[in-house]
Amino acid sequence: MTESASVQPVLFTPADDDFAQRVRDSFAKQAAMETLGVTLERIEAGEVEVQMAYNPAFCQQNGFLHAGTVTTAIDTACGYAAFSLMPADAAVLSVEFKINLLSPAKGERFVFIGKVVKPGRTISNVRGEAFAIANGVRKLIATMDGTMITILNRAGITD
Amino acid sequence: MTESASVQPVLFTPADDDFAQRVRDSFAKQAAMETLGVTLERIEAGEVEVQMAYNPAFCQQNGFLHAGTVTTAIDTACGYAAFSLMPADAAVLSVEFKINLLSPAKGERFVFIGKVVKPGRTISNVRGEAFAIANGVRKLIATMDGTMITILNRAGITD
Amino acid sequence: MTESASVQPVLFTPADDDFAQRVRDSFAKQAAMETLGVTLERIEAGEVEVQMAYNPAFCQQNGFLHAGTVTTAIDTACGYAAFSLMPADAAVLSVEFKINLLSPAKGERFVFIGKVVKPGRTISNVRGEAFAIANGVRKLIATMDGTMITILNRAGITD
Amino acid sequence: MTESASVQPVLFTPADDDFAQRVRDSFAKQAAMETLGVTLERIEAGEVEVQMAYNPAFCQQNGFLHAGTVTTAIDTACGYAAFSLMPADAAVLSVEFKINLLSPAKGERFVFIGKVVKPGRTISNVRGEAFAIANGVRKLIATMDGTMITILNRAGITD
Repeated sequence: MTESASVQPVLFTPADDDFAQRVRDSFAKQAAMETLGVTLERIEAGEVEVQMAYNPAFCQQNGFLHAGTVTTAIDTACGYAAFSLMPADAAVLSVEFKINLLSPAKGERFVFIGKVVKPGRTISNVRGEAFAIANGVRKLIATMDGTMITILNRAGITD
Repeated sequence: MTESASVQPVLFTPADDDFAQRVRDSFAKQAAMETLGVTLERIEAGEVEVQMAYNPAFCQQNGFLHAGTVTTAIDTACGYAAFSLMPADAAVLSVEFKINLLSPAKGERFVFIGKVVKPGRTISNVRGEAFAIANGVRKLIATMDGTMITILNRAGITD
Repeated sequence: MTESASVQPVLFTPADDDFAQRVRDSFAKQAAMETLGVTLERIEAGEVEVQMAYNPAFCQQNGFLHAGTVTTAIDTACGYAAFSLMPADAAVLSVEFKINLLSPAKGERFVFIGKVVKPGRTISNVRGEAFAIANGVRKLIATMDGTMITILNRAGITD
Repeated sequence: MTESASVQPVLFTPADDDFAQRVRDSFAKQAAMETLGVTLERIEAGEVEVQMAYNPAFCQQNGFLHAGTVTTAIDTACGYAAFSLMPADAAVLSVEFKINLLSPAKGERFVFIGKVVKPGRTISNVRGEAFAIANGVRKLIATMDGTMITILNRAGITD
């Protein structure tokens, strides 16, 4: 049963008890979220979920959500998952991420879940999953594997 | 002089002489490009450039272009770079990509260049670069490394 | 409970009932496995585990297993996880992978588990995890996210 | 001429004039390099080249160098490229990397070049290229895109 440990739920202790409000405040400042219609659905310490309805304005040539649209939402979920574990005065930036597009992004609605795999003082590893919901069936359409960095005291980067 | 070979310009022979028109036609069908204001600036066999003006509607919490917005444009440039070398009846999809966010995406205008590193019958490796232009100075802000797949004869995926 | 679906065990149906023997035969031909002392511990349809004892001959400058050594073992586990679901006459090659080094690779023994996330006719997405075992405690030290390709009828590439 | 800036040689100023000796000293402590027969061929500020002869002991099932062997050498070249620009008392660790296997690793000799794309106080982005030399012809067989971290004052991690 060596595999049992690999994906078990991990509980993290946030550095700041007010982490959920901090995530909501920062999310509200992201104009891109309002433009795309991405909504914040769930905030836990180390895990954040956002959702988005299908919108033809953000699609590629075959009518699927553009890979960059999927990335915008999944990166946001992952970034705030990392941010939720950071100190109260920290800001978060994406260093890098890899996105796998497993299936075309077609459906009525999309769910994006970001989780911290390994939090760190400076850099955190995150894992994200994107699901399409079509006719009530939920399907994994993309994953993200990324690195987020904790920014402290840098002018112009505040949350 | 071992390093000389590493990044020299490589000339590719397109499988379809009409590749530039094919790229333009497919690009025109991407609603996301019109929504974001991304324009097609240059098409060569194996290399495509798109541009985008700064737009606060697609920014993150500190007023930089969202990492997902940068990804949308750079993935498009890379996808069409690969598409330009594919047969006339092929469609292109992104399999996966890694994006490095090297500097905050601030500037008046952004340039995104996608290049084929290694074309293949089924999968192609691509490399992209994103530049911010601020006060006339051009700065590398992000890179992409990705895999594009040639799709033939799959219903609903046509270009 | 939206997260429940994300990492649940997925059962795959192998294309070839004899997949375990095929994995064992191919593994036995990998000289690198014998050189590094990597052993094949478990083969399921879509999941493979290999192990390796600590060996100073494959370490970096601080006495941890070299990132490339970790990669050798985790890529092998992931490659055979994909291979286990391929047709009997197929060969497997790694297209690309991303490795995250989450903690220094120190311990007495290392466990590497590769799993198929999304199998495909041509390309498969895989996920790997590497654990160090030190004083009986198992710790996640690295993850892999990769793309494997099914090769059919290509001279010189047989398994 | 927008593409001209993208891959031009960049000259970096090292933080420590003695960087080449520091790279040589650290490389000499990597047991894995001696085991695999990887040699240090060139050290510049921000760029390092290593080489390795073909060795069947580090091959996969079809007689090509194992993807993990290629990774070991290319990660070393990239790590020391980043290390060459770090302060005299810093150590280097790989955070993550993506490897693309563009062609089977067959040949008599292999050349691995690591370059810094963007150096940073804490994290640096690097790019690596692996070439096979067969019958005097040099061919790009793999690329790496990675993140290296500067470690200061952490017990057990010294170079």
